[in-house]
Amino acid sequence: MSDIWSEFAKTAEEARSFLVVSHVNPDPDAVGSVVGLARYLETLSKSVRMVTPTPIPENCRFLDPEGEIVLFDQTRADALLGAVDVAIILDLSSWNQLGEMAPALKDSGAYRVVIDHHTDPDDDIADLMVRDPAASATGVLIYELIRELGGRVTQPIANALFAAIMTDTGSFRFSNTDGRTFRIVADLIDAGVRPDDIYRRIYEGKRWGTVKLLPAVFATVERSANGKVAWMHANRSMLKQAGASFEDTDGYIDHIRAVKGVEVALFFKEVDEGRVRVSLRSQGGVDVARFAASMGGGGHTRAAGLAFEGTLEEAIAKVVPGLESLLRSHS
Amino acid sequence: MSDIWSEFAKTAEEARSFLVVSHVNPDPDAVGSVVGLARYLETLSKSVRMVTPTPIPENCRFLDPEGEIVLFDQTRADALLGAVDVAIILDLSSWNQLGEMAPALKDSGAYRVVIDHHTDPDDDIADLMVRDPAASATGVLIYELIRELGGRVTQPIANALFAAIMTDTGSFRFSNTDGRTFRIVADLIDAGVRPDDIYRRIYEGKRWGTVKLLPAVFATVERSANGKVAWMHANRSMLKQAGASFEDTDGYIDHIRAVKGVEVALFFKEVDEGRVRVSLRSQGGVDVARFAASMGGGGHTRAAGLAFEGTLEEAIAKVVPGLESLLRSHS
Repeated sequence: MSDIWSEFAKTAEEARSFLVVSHVNPDPDAVGSVVGLARYLETLSKSVRMVTPTPIPENCRFLDPEGEIVLFDQTRADALLGAVDVAIILDLSSWNQLGEMAPALKDSGAYRVVIDHHTDPDDDIADLMVRDPAASATGVLIYELIRELGGRVTQPIANALFAAIMTDTGSFRFSNTDGRTFRIVADLIDAGVRPDDIYRRIYEGKRWGTVKLLPAVFATVERSANGKVAWMHANRSMLKQAGASFEDTDGYIDHIRAVKGVEVALFFKEVDEGRVRVSLRSQGGVDVARFAASMGGGGHTRAAGLAFEGTLEEAIAKVVPGLESLLRSHS
Repeated sequence: MSDIWSEFAKTAEEARSFLVVSHVNPDPDAVGSVVGLARYLETLSKSVRMVTPTPIPENCRFLDPEGEIVLFDQTRADALLGAVDVAIILDLSSWNQLGEMAPALKDSGAYRVVIDHHTDPDDDIADLMVRDPAASATGVLIYELIRELGGRVTQPIANALFAAIMTDTGSFRFSNTDGRTFRIVADLIDAGVRPDDIYRRIYEGKRWGTVKLLPAVFATVERSANGKVAWMHANRSMLKQAGASFEDTDGYIDHIRAVKGVEVALFFKEVDEGRVRVSLRSQGGVDVARFAASMGGGGHTRAAGLAFEGTLEEAIAKVVPGLESLLRSHS
């Protein structure tokens, strides 16, 4: 057995009851990894509960058709965690990604395992850390775990892991998409996954609001620094008029990112009065995770986010010039 | 050696000079397959020429950096074909897909090999036919050919075949994307392909006009038949104001197609005074190729097009009700 899994194998064999959790605003890699691992542990006749700190998105519900993933409830934290031998924390390595679950997990007596592909973990988050930043998705690690432990990848597991990997690789197009990823996906398809079906469930089934909101948001596009920085924004009155929510803006930023010459694309969203969420995407040499971190945010080299206290105008006036000067220093 | 390649192997060994061709309006599967096979034949010290009946698209030029793919020239057909032992015809099985090259190839003394994944071939097109409709792309067949013949997949070959396979599978999301496809792609990545790079070259590098045009076009969205039909239009004044061309609207229709409940999406484009092009996409049971054919158009079951003589308003007034009644008869 590969070294990184031997310790986990022991834990999985000895413990009886597991909690499988992931991060706030769970994406398909979070949900798919949770479902994939939980379904596997169940085949070992373990007691398994799945919990997330905030609700799973609409487009992931098909991975949990019986609604077994429970939303964390502060008032029942003791009952939940008291009965658990091992808490397996997936697709995150820092306490703040656990939201309100963080203190409960910290205080519980449960043995904490983290399985993740992100960088810069918090030192004290895990009793056992299985971390591989080269993995394109946490779903890749769950697949390898199941195989290393001699398990079978059933169709529900395969669907969950396919959704995880497909989304974290941007539908197999990001730079993290390696041979290892494609070979695993080939196995998942042999296990019964229909790529067109999963694609449609994850990316399509959009609401009409997605389409109605486009004109107002794209009327705000601007660019600077010889077209290297491009941005746009959405405010709450646009949403209201279009009958849309911020969930409906998924994928909008790809349009400006895809323009020739754009090195950094930004999308400013007024999520509340005086609160702005900024999404950042990099095409070129700019590490947007580092830039975002300098303003209290985080993420990956090419896709990051940050929160800003203030108006949209203030956020734009603060963030855009910062990137412009970063781009000047790069060239 | 697998049976389907043994005859080809003999041909490849014996012949000295090859012409590698593909279809009119060559897409990345055509161009990538031509380049991949030609580069391989060159490693066998064969004389190879690459020809297409119409120019290769802008986004495929990086696969042919030296501009070695030649546009077919009727006046030089004899010189071109006289020196050729074998013409290898890729990604097509019917004469009309060869455009103006068809008669020249028919009349020449060259031995004709067709390698393709389409159905319904013309009987007399090939002296040797290697056809596998289960292959997700012709690029898959070229990969298997090279491997069966003991060749090496170099990085230029891998890039060409990756572009071929990525596009013919809709970036690995169509129903034809099987385990065989993903395993081959894994090998191509091991040979040096960078998926993010190829994706960007094929699908991105869009113009700013793509973004500037969005608001005007999406302000026209409408739907009917309980949301089963959705459509929008673009006229020439919108293009002018946005500094855009119809090429910039590639992919627009996917936004309305992706909305839950939409079975047929339509995009009406005023390509000229009194001339409208209509793009049709189907999600459900409607065969838009058949519908388009009833109005002089054509295409595939789920993606078709037709031309209309008249104004945008007339086109919409004619086409939309036709689909509405088709959908009523379906339900």
